[in-house]
Amino acid sequence: MSQLRVTVWNEGVHEKTHEEVRKVYPDGMHTVIAEALRKHGHSVLTATLDEPDHGLSDTVLAETDVLTWWGHMAHDKVEDRIVDRVHKRVLEGMGLLVLHSGHFSKIFKRLMGTSCDLKWREANERERIWIIDPSHPIADGLGDSFVIPHEEMYGEHFDIPAPDTLVMVSWFQGGEVFRSGACYQRGQGRIFYFRPGHETFPTYYQPEVQQVIANAVKWLAPVGRTPMQYGHRPNPLEPLG
Amino acid sequence: MSQLRVTVWNEGVHEKTHEEVRKVYPDGMHTVIAEALRKHGHSVLTATLDEPDHGLSDTVLAETDVLTWWGHMAHDKVEDRIVDRVHKRVLEGMGLLVLHSGHFSKIFKRLMGTSCDLKWREANERERIWIIDPSHPIADGLGDSFVIPHEEMYGEHFDIPAPDTLVMVSWFQGGEVFRSGACYQRGQGRIFYFRPGHETFPTYYQPEVQQVIANAVKWLAPVGRTPMQYGHRPNPLEPLG
Amino acid sequence: MSQLRVTVWNEGVHEKTHEEVRKVYPDGMHTVIAEALRKHGHSVLTATLDEPDHGLSDTVLAETDVLTWWGHMAHDKVEDRIVDRVHKRVLEGMGLLVLHSGHFSKIFKRLMGTSCDLKWREANERERIWIIDPSHPIADGLGDSFVIPHEEMYGEHFDIPAPDTLVMVSWFQGGEVFRSGACYQRGQGRIFYFRPGHETFPTYYQPEVQQVIANAVKWLAPVGRTPMQYGHRPNPLEPLG
Amino acid sequence: MSQLRVTVWNEGVHEKTHEEVRKVYPDGMHTVIAEALRKHGHSVLTATLDEPDHGLSDTVLAETDVLTWWGHMAHDKVEDRIVDRVHKRVLEGMGLLVLHSGHFSKIFKRLMGTSCDLKWREANERERIWIIDPSHPIADGLGDSFVIPHEEMYGEHFDIPAPDTLVMVSWFQGGEVFRSGACYQRGQGRIFYFRPGHETFPTYYQPEVQQVIANAVKWLAPVGRTPMQYGHRPNPLEPLG
Repeated sequence: MSQLRVTVWNEGVHEKTHEEVRKVYPDGMHTVIAEALRKHGHSVLTATLDEPDHGLSDTVLAETDVLTWWGHMAHDKVEDRIVDRVHKRVLEGMGLLVLHSGHFSKIFKRLMGTSCDLKWREANERERIWIIDPSHPIADGLGDSFVIPHEEMYGEHFDIPAPDTLVMVSWFQGGEVFRSGACYQRGQGRIFYFRPGHETFPTYYQPEVQQVIANAVKWLAPVGRTPMQYGHRPNPLEPLG
Repeated sequence: MSQLRVTVWNEGVHEKTHEEVRKVYPDGMHTVIAEALRKHGHSVLTATLDEPDHGLSDTVLAETDVLTWWGHMAHDKVEDRIVDRVHKRVLEGMGLLVLHSGHFSKIFKRLMGTSCDLKWREANERERIWIIDPSHPIADGLGDSFVIPHEEMYGEHFDIPAPDTLVMVSWFQGGEVFRSGACYQRGQGRIFYFRPGHETFPTYYQPEVQQVIANAVKWLAPVGRTPMQYGHRPNPLEPLG
Repeated sequence: MSQLRVTVWNEGVHEKTHEEVRKVYPDGMHTVIAEALRKHGHSVLTATLDEPDHGLSDTVLAETDVLTWWGHMAHDKVEDRIVDRVHKRVLEGMGLLVLHSGHFSKIFKRLMGTSCDLKWREANERERIWIIDPSHPIADGLGDSFVIPHEEMYGEHFDIPAPDTLVMVSWFQGGEVFRSGACYQRGQGRIFYFRPGHETFPTYYQPEVQQVIANAVKWLAPVGRTPMQYGHRPNPLEPLG
Repeated sequence: MSQLRVTVWNEGVHEKTHEEVRKVYPDGMHTVIAEALRKHGHSVLTATLDEPDHGLSDTVLAETDVLTWWGHMAHDKVEDRIVDRVHKRVLEGMGLLVLHSGHFSKIFKRLMGTSCDLKWREANERERIWIIDPSHPIADGLGDSFVIPHEEMYGEHFDIPAPDTLVMVSWFQGGEVFRSGACYQRGQGRIFYFRPGHETFPTYYQPEVQQVIANAVKWLAPVGRTPMQYGHRPNPLEPLG
């Protein structure tokens, strides 16, 4: 696997407005995710909502193999023209890793076609993430399950299309389950949804979580192919007799 | 299976503007599809683009179990508020049967999240539709394959999400293949895409095609259940200890 | 939906050898399952291991639309020739509902191709079964989840092929999750695996469990079609030019 | 991607008994496949039916990351104990690439659980293989489709489980279609079925076919993980309260 060009996108609002979050991620959670991916050998940029074009210019996206997305408070502040741009790039082959509350982002809802709604609770409860597909590269280096000591609960029904591959399912202390690691193909691109981590917990510092994110980035790498051709084919490939 | 309430939606433009189409479907193709479904015992309404709300008022949709959709020339004339309304009803459980050029309708693209693009050619060529999943109710009453003598070609790559179930694949004389019968679940609703028929051919009069449409309507019937609940669950179901 | 012919198969050993089980199912658990299905309008026979051909003669199977299977202690006592016979009938279109410890039956392992192994624990713990696909007929009449007060735990990884459709996931008090309702197509037949119920608990008397079993039987109904044709096709359908 | 250890298995009977086949593959088709994989940087062994243990000792299999399988005339000569051994290794994580008439091999039928039957015809006809999933690594480096000038026809219905991912569909001159590139997960291992090539044609010399085989081998690489744990878990992970 050669080095991939990853852009880590973060809304970056909680870290400025909530003291509790700033304590956990003083430089923004994007810096923690970016650092983890650099340790795994990737070339990483970061981008945030408050930059021009939200940091996602045509040039940046053209040079991005995999985009990671965390948002929560400000989904509606993401401009539609940028969503269109990201959507187009995913269908062209750019990988997209959607994290946690990104389930309600415009780009994820656009790509899924459903409400992406779910049940949730903030009660600092324990989450156990179980591996459902042990043959999958996103499960590389993991055991049968791993624990996140304190997390927000996300519960089923999660209103997404049935994943092409379901890699992980979460157990929550309060009684719920959740499809926590879900793979999709859309156009020439791939999407992975990964459920953790809530902004008030140090989830993205946890080694297993970083391992999954690094594995996912590799799995999301674009395939080296010419673009598919669409539209009018006036000439049959075979004689019509 | 009790009687289902089906609304057959048709753009209805070709039949008015193209003499060639009017000869095939003098009363609009919706009347032919509706009649076929009535013969299979369903309660059927029709609706067209030029009616108020395109014939799809809240009341009509609330009383529709399955909506069928044919459009082509006027996809852009379908109002977004009606698309929103249909989208909401599908997620609530209404079945949706998308026919032929409906692949480019707003509602199908919204539900799929992809471009829904494909290759096409109008050369009156032969199509053979092969059954891929013989256990599926939509294949009820069919043989190994059936032939449509003259059709427009639709060829892969068809830019849709991988179907939850692929029921049929088409062979075309000119050298292409196509995923012609594709099942999806979205929210509490179900979607079936069925590839035939082009407006200049008498495809919807063909018994096998009518059989597939009637089978699909049955498969698309809403499940009798209470709506799923979403949102904040402050109280855990189990003690957090 | 017309009346289906269901054969309820039970190993029937625990009920004879374990006083604890006899108390729960004095006439065998097959009688409880059969009675539930009769209430839902089906025509039901029962068959057990100790009958000639285990009660599964060619005639019985030929007249069975859906076979339900519960076994545990005596999987190895099921004769291979009967397994062959059931396997053949499933591929021909007979539905198969595999219950609980039937995950280790010869017929289920034959159809899955994997070890069908899992984690398990008998600790009388609580199971919550969550609906993952609310559009599915097997979820008809159910809420978001239901509870079985006391059950054996089955935990992931469950070594099965990824289900064609995953309808339910279980949460267990002791920390595990499990794919509890899994749909498969094999040949012209369909298979549903449903996780509950352990022989020492009155699980099959529970209304929600009976509802799922009745729903599953309907979903498993064979499609009315001619058998697919296989083998040598010396004559092309189209001219080879 | 580090170098993978591939074992190319060939029945190797046609090449000895049919002059027509010997002309195409004078040293056996395994040597051609092996050479193609070596050019793509892999470490390749070959093994054939007539060797002790069919060349598949425990040691060989333990040191094999991906096994490729071609057989036809002598499926029944493959010893069950070797099939058991290969089956076990696939579930442990070894990749398996099943080629062409290997669809009827004992190991493929064991892993699929179905008859694996199909339609066939030897008429030297043209095959066009269309890419259905352009995001898939097995489609790396390919265009929209490629042609094999002369091949045996395989036609639907192909009696396999619905693939986890369908990558390619074939068009045949004589009127049939076929699911030609099919991905499966079984246990910790992965399986790819690739339809070409018949023994009397130089299919395995064709660059696109070699590209698919090399891509498939990479996709089939085992994941570096500890084996999943199964069986009795007497101690709950969470307090049962």
